[in-house]
Amino acid sequence: MTTHKRPLILVTNDDGITAPGIRTLISIAEEFGDVMVVAPDSPQSGKGHAITVNNTLYVNKISQTEYSCSGTPVDCVKMAVHELMKQKPDLCISGINHGSNSSINVIYSGTMSAAVEAGIEGIPAIGFSLADFSWNANFEPTKPFVRKIISAALNNNLPKGVVLNVNFPNLPDKEIKGIKICRQANAMWIERFDKRQTPHGRDYYWLTGEFVNYDKGQDTDEWALANGYVSVVPVQFDLTAHHAIQTLNTWNINE
Amino acid sequence: MTTHKRPLILVTNDDGITAPGIRTLISIAEEFGDVMVVAPDSPQSGKGHAITVNNTLYVNKISQTEYSCSGTPVDCVKMAVHELMKQKPDLCISGINHGSNSSINVIYSGTMSAAVEAGIEGIPAIGFSLADFSWNANFEPTKPFVRKIISAALNNNLPKGVVLNVNFPNLPDKEIKGIKICRQANAMWIERFDKRQTPHGRDYYWLTGEFVNYDKGQDTDEWALANGYVSVVPVQFDLTAHHAIQTLNTWNINE
Repeated sequence: MTTHKRPLILVTNDDGITAPGIRTLISIAEEFGDVMVVAPDSPQSGKGHAITVNNTLYVNKISQTEYSCSGTPVDCVKMAVHELMKQKPDLCISGINHGSNSSINVIYSGTMSAAVEAGIEGIPAIGFSLADFSWNANFEPTKPFVRKIISAALNNNLPKGVVLNVNFPNLPDKEIKGIKICRQANAMWIERFDKRQTPHGRDYYWLTGEFVNYDKGQDTDEWALANGYVSVVPVQFDLTAHHAIQTLNTWNINE
Repeated sequence: MTTHKRPLILVTNDDGITAPGIRTLISIAEEFGDVMVVAPDSPQSGKGHAITVNNTLYVNKISQTEYSCSGTPVDCVKMAVHELMKQKPDLCISGINHGSNSSINVIYSGTMSAAVEAGIEGIPAIGFSLADFSWNANFEPTKPFVRKIISAALNNNLPKGVVLNVNFPNLPDKEIKGIKICRQANAMWIERFDKRQTPHGRDYYWLTGEFVNYDKGQDTDEWALANGYVSVVPVQFDLTAHHAIQTLNTWNINE
């Protein structure tokens, strides 16, 4: 006779612990297991894989199962795993982000960096993002897909060194066609700096930009989202471009 | 008859524009081409691929060829390429970082994230780091190797979508054995949070940790550095774990 223990699920995000996206994710996580929430006490969008090394961190205990932290999303995962949780979680889920983290956005994303950090720690991890930046984004249509993906991740073994980047198109539920496993599209931001002046006459800038997708492939996350699918990209944190090692050896750099 | 134009080289870092490491790198870059410096106005260690989206950016013109910026290393590259420079640089070099960015540190590193951002922008890019965190680190032994690697990068084509992560062992020049092309070692940090109290009685934490290398391979950057070599790892920003796509498709997640 085997004992079926409820899995322990760590939930985090980058929009902050009060965001509707993480509240949605927490409510779904509770259907699957025991939940611990450790999330930023303020918005941390665009923080990438930043960690707090030259400053202090504060933790605020909100309830037996929820903590907010003054640091980045990656700090939250480290704090959860190495300080606040008595045992290693069986799964870490991050999001649901208010805004897409498809293609190159994975690299700037606090949501995905939290999932990647959990992956580095050996914890199966998934980041979820909805292509709607607004605070009042409608997360209802994402729910059945979040359930399917969490269930699949708990019932299968994620390949070692791999976390999932899940993005939802901003569509009503009836228009979502299903889930597609994809690769990261070759896309980027063409930056434009909005130059302004302070009331005191000093120039300052806002970072803005236009997203450009160079990739015509139908196996990419951008294609999937544009065509009504939920995209799932397996993401790795071994950044080695293994194919380039041979090329670099032909440079005979030691001579 | 061809005209040999001097290459335009963008120099940045994460330790800030006054750090001895970037001053060393600037002096070497000037041997190879025309140099533009856009670097953070304060230390930005551990900032990973963070960008400033919810705050303003300030730029300070120090000279015709040097600007400091209030943002992250990635902000500096975006600011340089899209606002401050009249033409796209032929090469971007970042560092020399005070401290190693080998193995998993690549993902937390502002130095390497600046190089990766340049790579995303289609600019050949290299991050340099010395395994000595001190402000007074001795960069002299790195110089001949920095020259070799810059020269090789200018005379060859870096493979598309690849930037270089160069790390120097903290050794006198006679003990450095040469350069090795490597893969990223499978290593990580086991975190420990140093819990203290403010003078006002509130708990706070410092992030600390112990670096653990699980990788016995002799083709890794950690092996190279431990054995007296300069490590060069080709790094990519397509984070897709292509090998995992087939596995995920066997999950039949749509059913």
